[in-house]
Parts: sequence; C-alpha cells; structure tokens
Amino acid sequence: MSEDAKTRGPVEPMARDAERKFDRRRFLRGAAAAGGAAVGAAAGALPAVAAGNPENQPPNIPEWSKSLGASVVDRPYGAPSPFEKEVVRRSVPWLTATPESAINFAPLGELHGTITPNGLHFERHHGGAPDVDPTDHRLIVHGLVERPLVFTVADIKRFPSVSRIHFLECPANGGMEWKGAQMVGVQFTHGMLSNCEWTGVRLSIVLNEAGIKPEAKWLLAEGADAAAMTRSIPIEKAMDDTLLVYAMNGEALRAEQGYPLRLIVPGWEGNVNIKWLRRLKLGDQPWHHREETSKYTDLMADGRARQFTFVMEANSVITAPCPEKPLAFGAGRYEISGLAWSGRGKIKRVDVSTDGGNNWRTAELQSPVLSKAVTRFRLPWRWDGKQTFLQSRALDETGYVQPTIDQLRAARGVNSVYHKNSIHTWRITPKGEVDNVQVS
Amino acid sequence: MSEDAKTRGPVEPMARDAERKFDRRRFLRGAAAAGGAAVGAAAGALPAVAAGNPENQPPNIPEWSKSLGASVVDRPYGAPSPFEKEVVRRSVPWLTATPESAINFAPLGELHGTITPNGLHFERHHGGAPDVDPTDHRLIVHGLVERPLVFTVADIKRFPSVSRIHFLECPANGGMEWKGAQMVGVQFTHGMLSNCEWTGVRLSIVLNEAGIKPEAKWLLAEGADAAAMTRSIPIEKAMDDTLLVYAMNGEALRAEQGYPLRLIVPGWEGNVNIKWLRRLKLGDQPWHHREETSKYTDLMADGRARQFTFVMEANSVITAPCPEKPLAFGAGRYEISGLAWSGRGKIKRVDVSTDGGNNWRTAELQSPVLSKAVTRFRLPWRWDGKQTFLQSRALDETGYVQPTIDQLRAARGVNSVYHKNSIHTWRITPKGEVDNVQVS
Repeated sequence: MSEDAKTRGPVEPMARDAERKFDRRRFLRGAAAAGGAAVGAAAGALPAVAAGNPENQPPNIPEWSKSLGASVVDRPYGAPSPFEKEVVRRSVPWLTATPESAINFAPLGELHGTITPNGLHFERHHGGAPDVDPTDHRLIVHGLVERPLVFTVADIKRFPSVSRIHFLECPANGGMEWKGAQMVGVQFTHGMLSNCEWTGVRLSIVLNEAGIKPEAKWLLAEGADAAAMTRSIPIEKAMDDTLLVYAMNGEALRAEQGYPLRLIVPGWEGNVNIKWLRRLKLGDQPWHHREETSKYTDLMADGRARQFTFVMEANSVITAPCPEKPLAFGAGRYEISGLAWSGRGKIKRVDVSTDGGNNWRTAELQSPVLSKAVTRFRLPWRWDGKQTFLQSRALDETGYVQPTIDQLRAARGVNSVYHKNSIHTWRITPKGEVDNVQVS
Repeated sequence: MSEDAKTRGPVEPMARDAERKFDRRRFLRGAAAAGGAAVGAAAGALPAVAAGNPENQPPNIPEWSKSLGASVVDRPYGAPSPFEKEVVRRSVPWLTATPESAINFAPLGELHGTITPNGLHFERHHGGAPDVDPTDHRLIVHGLVERPLVFTVADIKRFPSVSRIHFLECPANGGMEWKGAQMVGVQFTHGMLSNCEWTGVRLSIVLNEAGIKPEAKWLLAEGADAAAMTRSIPIEKAMDDTLLVYAMNGEALRAEQGYPLRLIVPGWEGNVNIKWLRRLKLGDQPWHHREETSKYTDLMADGRARQFTFVMEANSVITAPCPEKPLAFGAGRYEISGLAWSGRGKIKRVDVSTDGGNNWRTAELQSPVLSKAVTRFRLPWRWDGKQTFLQSRALDETGYVQPTIDQLRAARGVNSVYHKNSIHTWRITPKGEVDNVQVS
C-alpha cells in the first residue's frame, strides 16, 4: 500500500508486482475469521445442511429441499429470482421533464463481472421507447452515394456478421456533478454505463454497397422514434469500427435499445449510437441538428460551446464498496472492485487509493481486457475502521490518465453537463457507510 | 472451397489463408443484388423514411414515429420485444417423466454471437427449480478437512472474486441421436448448451479455508433442491479452475441456474456443476451416488458402463442455416455461422464442408477465443440452389479433432445417451429447407 503510482510513468506495468506483494493466504484467513463459522458453534442454525444424509441430520430442512421446484414449462423466458426484486433500473424524476424523455440508470453497485444483463442495461430516450415492427421497418441509405438503397431487417441480417463487446455510456453520466451536486449512490453517479456483446454488420459494408461518393465526409444517422433522434458522424469513424447492430448479449435488441436496428459507434458518446435506425445520409458537412447543437455540446467557461466531443475518455468507478454496498462487517479485509473503460482503446492500468489520493496501489485487471469495453478491476484491502476516502484512476493504452476534478474544471470550466470523467471519491464513515463526496 | 483440410495436420493455422482467398467485395455485391432495393423502385413502399424531413416525405409514417414510446418507469427490469415472443426455451414432453425432471432447450438457431442471455440459458432439473432464500441458505464444508465451516452467502461474497466466460453443456446434448433418432431443429439437437460470464470465488480459496487433509482425494458436491443432486469431483479439478459462483452475465444467478450459489466446473459435463449448492464434503474416494451410477455413465457396446466421463470433448454445430433458419432467399450468397467449444481449452480451428464432408474450408473465428467457452465461427458461402449437406468440424488446442459419427460409434457403441460430440450434418433441400440427417 506504500507504492506511489504517481512517481511512475502512466503505462508501466505494475499489476504483477502488486499481485506478488499481496499475501493471499493471510487475506483469506482474515476473511474466514470474520465470515465462515465453525460447524460446531453454528450447527444449530444450519437450515440447509445434509438433508437425506443420515450422518448429520440438521434440525430444520427448508421447504425448498422437501418439495418440487418450478417446472421447465413455467419459464419459456426466465426472470430474476424473487429475492432480487430490488436490483432494477431506476430513474430520477427531477432530472427530466417527462418519463418518455428520461434516463433509467443501471444498478452498477449490484452488478458483477463486466457484462450488463439486457434487463438492466441503462436506457435514455427522448421520445420514449417504441415497439417497432421489424417486418415494416426499413433502413434507407442515400445522399452522396452512387446507389441509394432501402434495406429490410432481413436484408441486413444477410451480410457477414460480427460480434464485439463494447461499453455504451451517455455523455451526461456524472454530469450533474460538474458544479458540485452529489448524487446518492453509484447507480446515479455512473449508472448511464453498460457493456454488452453486440452482434451486427460492419457499417462500412453497408455503406460500400451504396457506393460512397468522394465528396462524402459526414454521415447523418436518424432514428424512427417520435423524437427522430438525429446525429452527424464523421465518415472516418463510420467506416472504421462502427457497427449496424441487431442483437445484444446473444438475443435481439431490446425495444429500449433500438430494436430492430441501431448503431454502435464504439467508444463514442451514447447519443450518437442511434437507436431504431431508419436513415443514413451521406453529406459533405455535419447537419447541426438539434441534438448536436442545443444539447450534447460542452459549454465552456468563456460561454462558447465545444461541439462534437465524440470520444468518451478513460474513466473508472469503484462499485464495491459504494453507497448501496457499505462495509457491512466492520474493520477487516475487503475486496475493492470496480469498473474502468476508455473510448480510445484498452484499459492499461487502474490505480486505487484508500487514503484520498496520497498513495496508490495498482489493481488486478480481469482478463480478457478488450478495446472500448468495460474492464473489471479488483484490489484486496484491510479497512482499519476509521474514516477514509477511496478513489480509482484509470489509464488507457494511449497513455491518457483519468484527471482529477480540479484538472478537469481548470480545462473546461463548470458549465457543461457532459463528459465528466474525473476521479471519483467515496468517503467511508467509521460505521462503514459510503458517501459520495468531492475531494479537491 | 477446394482446400482439403483432411490432408493437413490438426493444428495448422488456416484461417488467414481462407480469409485472403475470400473476395469480400464480390460477396457483398451479390448480397445487395439480392437484398437492398434501389430507392427509386421501392420508394412507394417505404414506411419509415425521413419523417419530419421536408426533402423526402414518405407516403406512410408508422405510428411509432408519431407518438411517444414506452417511458422509463415502465421497465425497471426489461423484457424482449413483443415481436420476439417465439424466441423462447422449449421442452420436449416425451423426453422426461415430469416437467420438474425435464430439460428446457435454448433456441440456438435464434441466438447471435457467443453470450447466452440469462432468460434463454438452457435448464435441466431433476426436482424442479426451487426459489432458495439467500438469507437462510448455508454452505457447509466438512469431511476430510482441518476445520469444518459453514458459510452464509454474504460470507462467500467477501472472498476475492473472479469472472470467467465458460460454456455449460448437459452431457445428454444430442444424446437421443446415438442410435439414429432425428430431432427436429438445432434447439433440440444441441440446445443443452449455453455460454455466460460467471462471477464468484475460486473454489480452492474456500477449500483452503477449511484446510484440506492430505488423504482427501475427492469432493462431494450436493444441491439443496428436492432431488438433492449429488456428484463426486476429483480434488485436482476442484482445486484447479472450479468456481463457486453467485452471478451470471453480471446479475445474480437465476433460480433455474442455482440461485444463490452453484459450482462452475469449467469444461466438465453440466451435471457436476451442482446448483443450489449447500454441501461440500472431502473424502478419499468417489461416493457413487445415484446420479453418477444409474445415470451419467456411458453404457458401452459390451454392456459395461464407462464411469466419470467428466470432460466435454470438442464439438460444433452450424446454427445458420438450420431447420429453424432456412435459406430464405433462394440460390445465392449466405453466411454460414455456428458455435464450437471444447472442455479441454481453446478452439483452434473450425472447418466447414458444404458438400457432405468431401471438401473442407476453414471458418473465421470470432475473437476473443476463450478457454472452455463457446467460439462463434463464420464462413461465406454461395449456394447453387441444389441439395447438399453442411457439416462443421472443431479442432481444439490439444489437437483433438471432432469425430465422425462412425468413428464415435466404433469407439463407444450405440447404447449411451451421453457425450455424443460427432460431426453434425444438415441437409439443404432444393427449396432451401434444412433437415437433420445422419451421414455415415
């Protein structure tokens, strides 16, 4: 814990060092002392042990071990356990004018690993989530092309397919905190972030079908929702790794994720990943539509707006502990765990501070580390039971280091509600509760 | 297509060669000619183009572009689009005595990429799927250990966590076809296969907490369901990569997948991945419980049973086309796509034959290729409109080559219903329909 990552370059590998220094066996003894109970002491409280095993009949056999459970005909499509009913997306009424132009935040504090299950993927709409009939839906490609084309969904599915795991993040994630507001819970500070395996077609294949004229430099993408969400995308990105997607985590897109067709623009702000995609138009300049002028621009300190901040820069957040997941066992050993991601490529390293930024240790990264995808990081920690401050700091493969809030405000002022990716701080109280605070 | 993989060694890399030889642009021109319609000809039929865009008012604007869609308060936990209601798990009544001791098959023909969404993960129970209350559930570790221990679910979650993507396959997958039965559809020939990101604790950590006595060679794992599913596992595997899991694809295990705790024994037959795990006992020999003697042994030609066939050997199946997904556009270009997996490690190569096994081409593998996880393979193909036979053949990193049905029957007879991993054949009819056949 004495290792100070600040004195190192941004891309030196530290994970193996940290792993060697962590005495795993000692950590485990500590956890067992706090957690697992010796059988002799706890046997009277054992409800579920060894039913039907004559050597050790427990006093209480739970009902679920004595009667048949649900049959397979009950669940053609499954749902979470009834004991998980609090693990849901949540909205914040005061954030939006109507529930159709609103945000549903993913419960990051209750999620594990890296994949976001489809039922909990965050959602952000401007006119509600329509139920589009895939047989009636069409995608038109026109503008500066040799051959304007109209595709059915079945047409699109005939093209060579590809699957990629990518994060999706609304650029307003955390944006309420530019000026110092304190959201309560990681679901609301960072829950406009999700990570799925997307399957579809490389957009370049579809655009090449239409034949791109040499003067085409921008792509207009338009949704079929009532808001007709419309954004301009540079042709280089459209032809690079942008995907025309029809499936997420193995199954068809959910309605709220753009069923039956959407764009996935890897690493770029969520808003350009147009859902219910119905139109692609090629042109020689951006269109300056409503959602890329009055919104989704960054208002700077001098009153000018920075337009087209497409890339989501490296960011990270600790999800355990967090306000929803306090330190419930008193002083002792815990695993700190969280998520890191970068719109520019792979996460190279994540440093964690357990003393408000004075000292940093390098966390272990869960493999595989994928480009423009969420990476899970983990670090063992012994809490001494006193107040302290937890922080995480992501570094990506380009050498970019997640900034402090002071660094970010110095560069961009406090007027924006977008692209706030500064180091996040959780305060641990002596009771083990976790508060959202800002540390300068 | 003239490349004959049979003349090569089993582990030579062929993917790059095949990729170079495939003329992607020519493929795409073919697809567009069949698929995308020119705008001029089809404009009258465009329901969804350019609403609110004065330059190109279409004749019909669909209702979903004119009225607000679903609000975020409607969907705390999402569900598939109503247009996807046929994409569900399905059971086969004649296969099982009661719906609580049954199989619900995953709809592989409708799935994309590699991840199985939790709602569609195959399920196989022997006493139904219980709704276990996690606060009352306990896991006991006893037998040949230094310190018998009882854990709550919260205790288990305090240990260092890990996430891994692994397939899970019932060893009876395809087993009805040992003797020549023909299931109708890939959902029933191979649908006892799924692939998730599992999160939990390395089992070795928990067992080391209890302290393994030197004479302990086997582990008994027992479920809390009414069937008290019980299996014996060698200690080497338990201490290697076996996981004690509480989450799948980011969220808590589903009830039908063992909520709140299960084993994941990577690459081993599904039945040993004990769900609703309540007991781990260490011993010096296997227990020979009901589910590893009367069932889950392989009855050989000479009447003896092969016991403890744990590993799921390399296997593969083409999921597009398949009986549920025929060639719907007549002669022309299609993408052949499917799944390959091996319980011994990574898939090294998948060969595809479009002429019943005479010639083989190497398919493209979707990255990342992960150990003991499903790998998606893809190959472009031009169908000439005539009857033919499609096959896929997986090779894993150990050099193992998926066998023909004749090779498998020669080695193991036809009495078993388990571990049938032979090359699967789809017959394409001149109408583009797809039948399940067996080719010797």
